[in-house]
Amino acid sequence: MQAKAVVLLSGGLDSATVLAIARDQGFACHALSLDYGQRHRVELAAARRVAAALGVVEHKIIGLDLATIGGSALTDPAIAVPQAPTEGIPVTYVPARNTVFLALALGWAEVLGAQDLFIGVNAVDYSGYPDCRPEYIAAFERLANLATRAGVEGAAFHVHAPLMRMSKAEIIRTGIGLGMDYGLTLSCYAADAAGRACGCCDSCRLRAAGFIAAGVPDPTRYVAD
Amino acid sequence: MQAKAVVLLSGGLDSATVLAIARDQGFACHALSLDYGQRHRVELAAARRVAAALGVVEHKIIGLDLATIGGSALTDPAIAVPQAPTEGIPVTYVPARNTVFLALALGWAEVLGAQDLFIGVNAVDYSGYPDCRPEYIAAFERLANLATRAGVEGAAFHVHAPLMRMSKAEIIRTGIGLGMDYGLTLSCYAADAAGRACGCCDSCRLRAAGFIAAGVPDPTRYVAD
Repeated sequence: MQAKAVVLLSGGLDSATVLAIARDQGFACHALSLDYGQRHRVELAAARRVAAALGVVEHKIIGLDLATIGGSALTDPAIAVPQAPTEGIPVTYVPARNTVFLALALGWAEVLGAQDLFIGVNAVDYSGYPDCRPEYIAAFERLANLATRAGVEGAAFHVHAPLMRMSKAEIIRTGIGLGMDYGLTLSCYAADAAGRACGCCDSCRLRAAGFIAAGVPDPTRYVAD
Repeated sequence: MQAKAVVLLSGGLDSATVLAIARDQGFACHALSLDYGQRHRVELAAARRVAAALGVVEHKIIGLDLATIGGSALTDPAIAVPQAPTEGIPVTYVPARNTVFLALALGWAEVLGAQDLFIGVNAVDYSGYPDCRPEYIAAFERLANLATRAGVEGAAFHVHAPLMRMSKAEIIRTGIGLGMDYGLTLSCYAADAAGRACGCCDSCRLRAAGFIAAGVPDPTRYVAD
């Protein structure tokens, strides 16, 4: 039987590549997106496009009101998304986001009988987020095996972070090699309602530089176009 | 300045006692409840009563659609709550629930600048849930310090599980000693809309036996009364 995996899918370039990788590795992919009050909700439309294009077994979108907690430019309308580079951990950092997302992926994996979780974190172009480091992923894997019925019964969860050591250009070349159409994805933190990218935020700048470095035409639709 | 703590508050006997303990230890308490599609939503009314009675600084209720994942009698209407003892990990186990809840508490703690989380897990009367064991709590604490901006900057998170080694009777005696009115709390997994307990589910049976063992009158309102 084909092994099942839960793949966290935001609709951005990174998580779409992860889904392509998981599929290429032979997993039956169950994609999980979070509707967490993010400013850039058009990314959920991108997640749906990517999930459909890559033929996932199932795509679930879980509602979670992270705006209640606030503390991030991505969920709090009172905090602006920076349009130029900033120092240190940026205000787009959502407190404990990857921990919350991986916990939900783990819960669904338990229900499915899956032991493999995929997440598109990246320690190279990681924008300074603490929950994108290898030691963090290893700690979550350890937690997963203690947290769950499956872990108690002897299963071993594996948290796959295949982009961890890749540059943005390597991620893009990997995805292109797997047939990924990045025109389906949306990375911008401040996209307009039509899903056009601002071209200025951290995420847009990393993405645009990645296409240039990869020597691949950038399919992104920008507001300024 | 008084140190802040985030206290997970379900509205049940255990978490109410934890809140009383955290307050007694001098913390400025921020109570967090989850509206996660649980069958026993009247427990949120109990959480509000307890939070008000104990004078928390703030009480947040975060919406989270765990029913999307299913897999538990507490969130899936198709799975009945057992009315008699069962073997092993019960069907009321919600996959990865404490991991999700602690992750959200961690996120709020980061926003508040708090480093102390309180949770009412218990390894004695723990009903067979894997995420109620000391080694699980230790693993989450380790994860928290790797996951967060505060951890990166040198703060140390502490996950307090003060009920871990207590019997239900000891929990009740501790709460009574701190002035807790357990008539405000609701532990039942299958309470009616008026907040009356079924008296038969795992949670009701543990609670009722606890009051008897503690030699304290049981203030619970039961459907059969």
